[in-house]
Amino acid sequence: MRVLVVGTGLIGTSVALALRASGAGVWLSDRDEATAKLAADLGAGTVVPDLRDAKGIADIAVLAGPPGVIAPTLALSQEYGVAEFYTDVASVKVLPVRQARELGCDLSSYVPGHPLAGRERHGPAAARADLFLGRTWALCPLPETSPDAVAAVTSMVLACAADPVTTDPGTHDRWVALISHAPHVVAAAMAARLAPDSVPADALKLAGQGLRDVTRVAAGDSALWTQILSANAGPVAEVVAAVADDLAAAARALGVSAALLARGDDPPEPPEMSGSLPDVTGLLDRGRAGVARIPGKHGGQPRNFTVVQVVIADQPGELARLFNAAGAAGVNIEDVRIEHSPGLPLGVAELSVRPDQAPVLLDAMEAGGWPVRR
Amino acid sequence: MRVLVVGTGLIGTSVALALRASGAGVWLSDRDEATAKLAADLGAGTVVPDLRDAKGIADIAVLAGPPGVIAPTLALSQEYGVAEFYTDVASVKVLPVRQARELGCDLSSYVPGHPLAGRERHGPAAARADLFLGRTWALCPLPETSPDAVAAVTSMVLACAADPVTTDPGTHDRWVALISHAPHVVAAAMAARLAPDSVPADALKLAGQGLRDVTRVAAGDSALWTQILSANAGPVAEVVAAVADDLAAAARALGVSAALLARGDDPPEPPEMSGSLPDVTGLLDRGRAGVARIPGKHGGQPRNFTVVQVVIADQPGELARLFNAAGAAGVNIEDVRIEHSPGLPLGVAELSVRPDQAPVLLDAMEAGGWPVRR
Repeated sequence: MRVLVVGTGLIGTSVALALRASGAGVWLSDRDEATAKLAADLGAGTVVPDLRDAKGIADIAVLAGPPGVIAPTLALSQEYGVAEFYTDVASVKVLPVRQARELGCDLSSYVPGHPLAGRERHGPAAARADLFLGRTWALCPLPETSPDAVAAVTSMVLACAADPVTTDPGTHDRWVALISHAPHVVAAAMAARLAPDSVPADALKLAGQGLRDVTRVAAGDSALWTQILSANAGPVAEVVAAVADDLAAAARALGVSAALLARGDDPPEPPEMSGSLPDVTGLLDRGRAGVARIPGKHGGQPRNFTVVQVVIADQPGELARLFNAAGAAGVNIEDVRIEHSPGLPLGVAELSVRPDQAPVLLDAMEAGGWPVRR
Repeated sequence: MRVLVVGTGLIGTSVALALRASGAGVWLSDRDEATAKLAADLGAGTVVPDLRDAKGIADIAVLAGPPGVIAPTLALSQEYGVAEFYTDVASVKVLPVRQARELGCDLSSYVPGHPLAGRERHGPAAARADLFLGRTWALCPLPETSPDAVAAVTSMVLACAADPVTTDPGTHDRWVALISHAPHVVAAAMAARLAPDSVPADALKLAGQGLRDVTRVAAGDSALWTQILSANAGPVAEVVAAVADDLAAAARALGVSAALLARGDDPPEPPEMSGSLPDVTGLLDRGRAGVARIPGKHGGQPRNFTVVQVVIADQPGELARLFNAAGAAGVNIEDVRIEHSPGLPLGVAELSVRPDQAPVLLDAMEAGGWPVRR
């Protein structure tokens, strides 16, 4: 397979590295020459100085840029005839497809795509050959797209060790609005409440893993995320508005409850009390149901693991000792999370294992001298 | 130290177990006799069948129940004279303190408290002696509270291996609204968007760690959380309303952008585009600033770790081999997260280490045969 990567940022260079690792011939192009050279130095492929001289160089051209530059780049690449088939990796699909149509691009050779992978760093230096390993890679063939183009791009996705999922551009954009773009805005809105003018640092000493998890993604780059959100504005606006409505309703219900409290009326005892805040309980119930639908590891049953908690000393070798004991007992640890211990050189490791392996793990922990509660 | 725990649920029984481990004498009481007996069977202490017969039994009585029952229990316990000093562990403080005042309780012997620890399970069977290890434990002495009471309760908190932080009830409630209660509502509102009627299961196959993190806490018990939110309704309403306002403004800005897109006006190119959604970029910027203020492990510099990513096979012993290699190289892994790999028996372990230890870890990984990108 011969592939031309146009745009050697994080995603483009990672695609190039993954394909090189699979034995493909890879050519690189970037409007910033130094960026393309850096990618080449990292072993991602051979730089093509000018696309005008690259006629027929590749089977597939991968257009790796922000949503707004995909269609113009596709038009130019097809004009120069650099490849037989074309795909892109932008995180929204309706906008580039519409623009490609308007620019009169050949859609029979074009398979819009989007690998669901990324990092909080950018540029070719952050690229990884294994970035797409086991990740979903959405492909959105158009009515005009030829079966040969779909087959070729699907092979390329599989060569990157990703899991291709086929849908259409509109559905794709609504899905990523829901599972990625809107959650980013929601996390940012919660994190924005932690600003210095409203919260002393002491308050944040009380923060646990819950707050860290809810706000983590909000650490991403604001300018880049504004571009992504802008290019998928409609679907994101719809989800964010619905979340805002639910939160406003919850705040109103809590406000009524607070006013009763301030008047000296105690909140009614449970279970009556739950009934007095139906908006809030209802929202929490819907939230529980939503969380339960997120698939777990390997696309299997969601959260179908038992969590075993073990106290560990915060020193080199301690985790190794723990995992050795688990491995020696034949237990496969599906996931691990370390709970932070502010102020103490100790932590709690939470090990997720299949329910039938939990007793085996507990035996192994106990035999190894770790304090265990069953 | 002699301690009487009134209410042997998860928190009360964990306090009892922690104090027993430190050598204290512990007595147990619960209005449900079977619950108290189960705690006793777990080694948490000795059951006191009737508080009326428990005069002078303890130095400190720990009242472990939901916010609404703290004050009545305090009044009764003081009437029976079961202890010299009193504290509680409810997750809100203004409500029980106001009720204690109204009931004419002796406030000189009472130190309102709240350990910042918990689990997603409930009841004495889920209790752990190490539940408070390294966790913050808020103490909110009142103007009437005697120094002796504060000293005694502080000693007890230290005996539980927790980190006492002193504040006042109103400040405490505003802080936990911000770092725990409001994030729970926000996570639930996002997770509620994932309901079956609006999202097919296929869409959730695209979900990454970001969505899992943002929504994780929303898996908690709805009835319990409604009680907590109701008892701290004012401060929670304030934070949730502010988040709702920010999200509504972001949705409006995105809606305007979407209308322009639908009219066929392309979004302006960056950097101008960022300027076209100032509400959104501003919110994302404030979110980034907020996330950066959350303290990291050991209360140190937030997020001052380098993340090293390593591809691992999903089989027993693989993590052990990885941590052995790190331990042998003298590298202390501060945190670890395993990225899920839907559909493939492989994963990516993200190891957080001190920046100066990252090159050492990378050398060790490379020597151990793991694929490493620098």
